[in-house]
Amino acid sequence: MQRLLILLASLIVVHSSFSAQPNVVIIFADDLGYGDLSCYGSPTIHTPNLDRMADEGLRFTDFYSAAEVCTPSRAALLTGRYPIRSGMCGSRRVLFPNSEGGLPKDEVTIADALKGKGYATMQIGKWHLGIHDGSRPLDQGFEHQYGLPYSNDMDARPGLPKGSTGSPTPPEDGWNVALSRDGEVIEKPTVQTTLTKRYTEEAVKFITEKKDKPFFLYFAHTFPHVPLFASPAFKGKSRGGIFGDSVEELDWSVGQVMNALKKNGIAENTLVFFTSDNGPWLIMGNQGGSAGLLKDGKGSTWEGGMRVPGIAWMPGRIKPGVAHELANAMDLFATSLALGGAKSPDVPVDGVDLSPLLFESKPLPQRPFFYYRGDQLFACRIGEWKAHFRTQTGYGQPKADSHVPPLLFHLGLDPSEKRDVAKDHPDVIAQIEEAVKAHQSNLVPGNPQLQ
Amino acid sequence: MQRLLILLASLIVVHSSFSAQPNVVIIFADDLGYGDLSCYGSPTIHTPNLDRMADEGLRFTDFYSAAEVCTPSRAALLTGRYPIRSGMCGSRRVLFPNSEGGLPKDEVTIADALKGKGYATMQIGKWHLGIHDGSRPLDQGFEHQYGLPYSNDMDARPGLPKGSTGSPTPPEDGWNVALSRDGEVIEKPTVQTTLTKRYTEEAVKFITEKKDKPFFLYFAHTFPHVPLFASPAFKGKSRGGIFGDSVEELDWSVGQVMNALKKNGIAENTLVFFTSDNGPWLIMGNQGGSAGLLKDGKGSTWEGGMRVPGIAWMPGRIKPGVAHELANAMDLFATSLALGGAKSPDVPVDGVDLSPLLFESKPLPQRPFFYYRGDQLFACRIGEWKAHFRTQTGYGQPKADSHVPPLLFHLGLDPSEKRDVAKDHPDVIAQIEEAVKAHQSNLVPGNPQLQ
Repeated sequence: MQRLLILLASLIVVHSSFSAQPNVVIIFADDLGYGDLSCYGSPTIHTPNLDRMADEGLRFTDFYSAAEVCTPSRAALLTGRYPIRSGMCGSRRVLFPNSEGGLPKDEVTIADALKGKGYATMQIGKWHLGIHDGSRPLDQGFEHQYGLPYSNDMDARPGLPKGSTGSPTPPEDGWNVALSRDGEVIEKPTVQTTLTKRYTEEAVKFITEKKDKPFFLYFAHTFPHVPLFASPAFKGKSRGGIFGDSVEELDWSVGQVMNALKKNGIAENTLVFFTSDNGPWLIMGNQGGSAGLLKDGKGSTWEGGMRVPGIAWMPGRIKPGVAHELANAMDLFATSLALGGAKSPDVPVDGVDLSPLLFESKPLPQRPFFYYRGDQLFACRIGEWKAHFRTQTGYGQPKADSHVPPLLFHLGLDPSEKRDVAKDHPDVIAQIEEAVKAHQSNLVPGNPQLQ
Repeated sequence: MQRLLILLASLIVVHSSFSAQPNVVIIFADDLGYGDLSCYGSPTIHTPNLDRMADEGLRFTDFYSAAEVCTPSRAALLTGRYPIRSGMCGSRRVLFPNSEGGLPKDEVTIADALKGKGYATMQIGKWHLGIHDGSRPLDQGFEHQYGLPYSNDMDARPGLPKGSTGSPTPPEDGWNVALSRDGEVIEKPTVQTTLTKRYTEEAVKFITEKKDKPFFLYFAHTFPHVPLFASPAFKGKSRGGIFGDSVEELDWSVGQVMNALKKNGIAENTLVFFTSDNGPWLIMGNQGGSAGLLKDGKGSTWEGGMRVPGIAWMPGRIKPGVAHELANAMDLFATSLALGGAKSPDVPVDGVDLSPLLFESKPLPQRPFFYYRGDQLFACRIGEWKAHFRTQTGYGQPKADSHVPPLLFHLGLDPSEKRDVAKDHPDVIAQIEEAVKAHQSNLVPGNPQLQ
């Protein structure tokens, strides 16, 4: 009888602690492709921690980054909006150190919304949403920050030999990028070799310190973006060279975060979501990763450019399995706000709350997904159908091809986009064109920020 | 104390029952590609049973069929020898209904060897190793047989419209292939729609009936070889069309076999190995499957033609995980004989016993793997290095290209065989050429059987 009471009491505690604002941890890899984890079919990279996360959680087969390159992808994840709305995309593709803009102050990020509901908030790792007033992590809802302002290949040392960035052995002193804590530079140039390790220590520390209040951790890894570095414990250990080493260290890091949550007894009350900002950077060759069976990679709106790993983990709350639902990084905004009990901002939001799928295995509403290259809409998917209005590879095609009628692929039958079936399905194309028209008719582009 | 004794007693029983000739079940898919299962990264085909088999077992990332097409692959699996040794390969590629040869009677199959050690033996499904005296299942060590003599697209009905074989809706009465039991025809033409289901019922029946003696079951599925059919319970249910449907039914079948072993209390005493006879038949388009990130498919010696799923399952005996060891279908011969306590025949055997890897997580000895196209050696892999002496696609390249020096790929850094690095590694090429020379110097080709 006493045992029964203890069991009942513990059930009540678990339930009430879940209803009361679960923690949110988003782990974001940089340039990790659809095919770069064991659980997504990589033959060469060994990722036992992410495989375990997938085994214990929900692994998405059709999860998309919201953009084909870094800056717009991150802006969209944090705001729940296509980057065109915030002006965080354009012909320059990403923010550079000399860009004058950044994520506008009036954009509401996940951190803004959850901080407003009493969450502790921290950003670890790469930012790449602006270095000027109003755009930096502490301006965008994060109470704490530890990491780099942008990509690790920016701010190169003068005289850096050509090819250094994509080299299997990049020079350790090749880049001047600064490491900062809470907005103050603490190391320049950053020692990149131990960066994943140090990020991870910060993450574990934050989790441990904040375990008794709700928290939001946005953990945006620097790797496997080139130049690639790994700690001595991982360097030279994988089958996949330095690319594999850096992904295996990232996998270790994910394991450390999961362990910290378990150790502190809050795993059941923390949604962890792992994904990547875009597909693999194929022009980097052996240092560029793989999109698996998907076509093309980073920079393109073929599937390999934007379909990425997506794994949701919350043991005891999320039923383990494989999800074929169409979802994307902007949904993490809506989901996080729903979990935190925060109101959605009074602006158009493109993500939807994934909770019904995650916690009740209910299907998501069907909705179109739009593939942008910069500020141009290149493609649209509805259900299994994807129409390409324009295409351009991520590896050097100088100008986009236009397609009238659009190319049409059935991603269920033909996930590698090999067989255009536009001729056979004018009705499907009409339906997609309708959805694009509806999307564009109420779209107000934000002020361009990348110049 | 009593509990302790029971525990000790049960440990002794488990141990002794394992030492005493475990059962062997080989499940062999037809034309299933490296990328066609969820656990190998398929986004579109849902294979929860094979995923569970992989979770609970050892999933190989670098497992090879012993040939690029059907007949030689099967001959090699059952004999442990490259098909050139048995004459079961050549320019005709596979056995046809009008071929005069077949697997020579004096070849020792797994079934021969295990039957000699008291195993009950059965072959279910596609044979394709000969229809004449001496070559048929009952001549080759199998006490029981249930299935088709060759591929389901052979023996086509006269007047069959062109394109029927690779059609998403092939005619049910399109082929005259006969179903036989223990060598006697019981149905002609075979109703293919329920074939996977009926094979599975036979397998479960055999397992249940033979549960008290050691048994060897060679379960060679007809699908997903075209023409594709599926039971009403699976037809139209997958994202991947009839190809996906038939693989999902195959996955169901694997689950039924695993359940039957568990239900009969012999799962811990049965090695189950799942693999495929060669890569996906890419010219079949939507009905042709996927090699994932690997290059090319069935018929070619690029990785996609011969690297296939490979999963070993024996709960409690095989430690769950992912194996990056280089292994191949011929190893199943040596492994099965070792488990059964059978002596290896007095002929050259190319497979090795995988037991140390499976049961003790010990690395396998390094050895070259030879890729044959028909009776021609096209490529060789040692460790991560693969050299192509000749290449020819599986989809219509009329004549092979010769390469002097050979093309060289590092399959760890470059699993998709995109970047030839022959120029940088003459030493590696010399080592591989040495291994090829050693292999060929003691090779005695068997009498050609396919004409």
